[in-house]
Amino acid sequence: MSLQVVAVLGRGLVGVDTPVAAADDLGLTRGDGCFEGCRVRRTRSGGGPAGSVGAGPVAELDKLDLHLARMARSAAALDIGFDEVAWRALVGDATAAWAAGSTDGEAAVKLVLTRGRPDYPGVPTGFVTVSPIGDVIHRQRRDGIRVCTLDRGTSADAFAAAPWLMGGVKTLSYVVNMAAQREAARRGDDDALYLSADGWVLESPTSAIVWAVDGALRTVAAGANGILGSTTLALLFTRAAAAGWETVATAARVEDLFAADVVVSVSSVRGPVRVTAIDGRPLSATPPGQRALIDCRELTDFADPVS
Amino acid sequence: MSLQVVAVLGRGLVGVDTPVAAADDLGLTRGDGCFEGCRVRRTRSGGGPAGSVGAGPVAELDKLDLHLARMARSAAALDIGFDEVAWRALVGDATAAWAAGSTDGEAAVKLVLTRGRPDYPGVPTGFVTVSPIGDVIHRQRRDGIRVCTLDRGTSADAFAAAPWLMGGVKTLSYVVNMAAQREAARRGDDDALYLSADGWVLESPTSAIVWAVDGALRTVAAGANGILGSTTLALLFTRAAAAGWETVATAARVEDLFAADVVVSVSSVRGPVRVTAIDGRPLSATPPGQRALIDCRELTDFADPVS
Repeated sequence: MSLQVVAVLGRGLVGVDTPVAAADDLGLTRGDGCFEGCRVRRTRSGGGPAGSVGAGPVAELDKLDLHLARMARSAAALDIGFDEVAWRALVGDATAAWAAGSTDGEAAVKLVLTRGRPDYPGVPTGFVTVSPIGDVIHRQRRDGIRVCTLDRGTSADAFAAAPWLMGGVKTLSYVVNMAAQREAARRGDDDALYLSADGWVLESPTSAIVWAVDGALRTVAAGANGILGSTTLALLFTRAAAAGWETVATAARVEDLFAADVVVSVSSVRGPVRVTAIDGRPLSATPPGQRALIDCRELTDFADPVS
Repeated sequence: MSLQVVAVLGRGLVGVDTPVAAADDLGLTRGDGCFEGCRVRRTRSGGGPAGSVGAGPVAELDKLDLHLARMARSAAALDIGFDEVAWRALVGDATAAWAAGSTDGEAAVKLVLTRGRPDYPGVPTGFVTVSPIGDVIHRQRRDGIRVCTLDRGTSADAFAAAPWLMGGVKTLSYVVNMAAQREAARRGDDDALYLSADGWVLESPTSAIVWAVDGALRTVAAGANGILGSTTLALLFTRAAAAGWETVATAARVEDLFAADVVVSVSSVRGPVRVTAIDGRPLSATPPGQRALIDCRELTDFADPVS
């Protein structure tokens, strides 16, 4: 968990214990802002000969463009300024500092943008953090996860004409997502799987759901149901289509997941992990399903997560 | 807007620009915490003769016990520790500093509690801020407010068996409330009034709704609809009942508000203000309604807000 790097927009690297938000920062008092969570990996070298420029450790952020594009969309939905050039530089500084100061092969990177302070309208607060991949995630990658279904309270069309509900926006107001994960833990599960009030499969608090059936990879279509567009899913479906998979965004009931060859939870830091049970009922992975899981991992660069 | 006082739990008074939250504070990264917003008033003197002990300015926080009790309930729902004695002392220090350093007759006080940092489980972050009552609030107290109805996305029974949805908990995850108020401003209104997905009146983003009809004061009953229990409403209904009003917590449609003698929005800092229009359609205040509005103000100590 321990932070390894903190870098603040307009300021650069600071000590990891340095407070970064004032008492009236609207990110802190209202959850008014947005964020991205990503993975950075160490590439073995910069490509040059030992001792030359470029031979040092190099950090590569997974699908940086997709994350920056989604953050720009979130910021626009919130009417908060987003300077992509400055963020790209800040992420570069933070991940370079991580690569220079850590021997880990991968780490979790978070980009946080808030509306800032009321007295300084139009001056957002922004920072990037880098922290280790925890043991829990390593175990879940290996063993898969058990999920419980939880009612999200909204129907599958609740967000159609209500932009103030922030459907599809990755805001800082995640208290329900955190409470849902605590509820899952209370039930002896690893994560939650949201259903709409009218019984449709949605997403998990911090991951998207994919399942393979009949030679196709399927996921829940985003839109009026308010779910977040997953960057890992976007990468997976693009590459899977190129590799010959049929890819389908659709609506589903829990029974559709039980009928699948495999069910996979995908997110940027944890990567694709198999869902082994829903509400205590085991989910099988057929031989085609096991093949699909391997493909999901390889196509998202999680075939062999660097430890 | 400018902060006048900031006091941090376990630390005391700090400069108003002093950052108080680290980059991984879960209040900042997840909106994972709770808060209270209250009003403090200056009483004319401490009661003693001029120059004696007790003659200095005295600050009195409106319904402190109700706010602390609600914050304790919010913290319990979030499974975050809440040391009421320490908070009472912190609020006392902050409001005393305000009374000594400002000549204003009233101010807005905020209590913020977060889950703290992942590396320090069980060590919450807490702070109190004091800031001036803004011009907008003074104007709204005088002129009333125009509201627009916005769909809250959840049905009136959505929260019945889903504690993870945090119904009735005053969490820091207020991004939808802030977006709803921006949507209201976009429509030329002063505030939003939430309706459930099935058309029942709920509450406003930061206030509760009261209406007078047939000699009774009515409000929306909290419960499965997820609305917050208002402290101002609790005080009002207790005192109104003692003063001879019938008080009713019920369910209502927008048409019920148009049929009322007066509709009032109540909150701790703004106090009771008249709702003058809903979705552009004017709301009348009959003579009994005008009397009810005056009673709402007097019974909540907003008869003559000190400026």
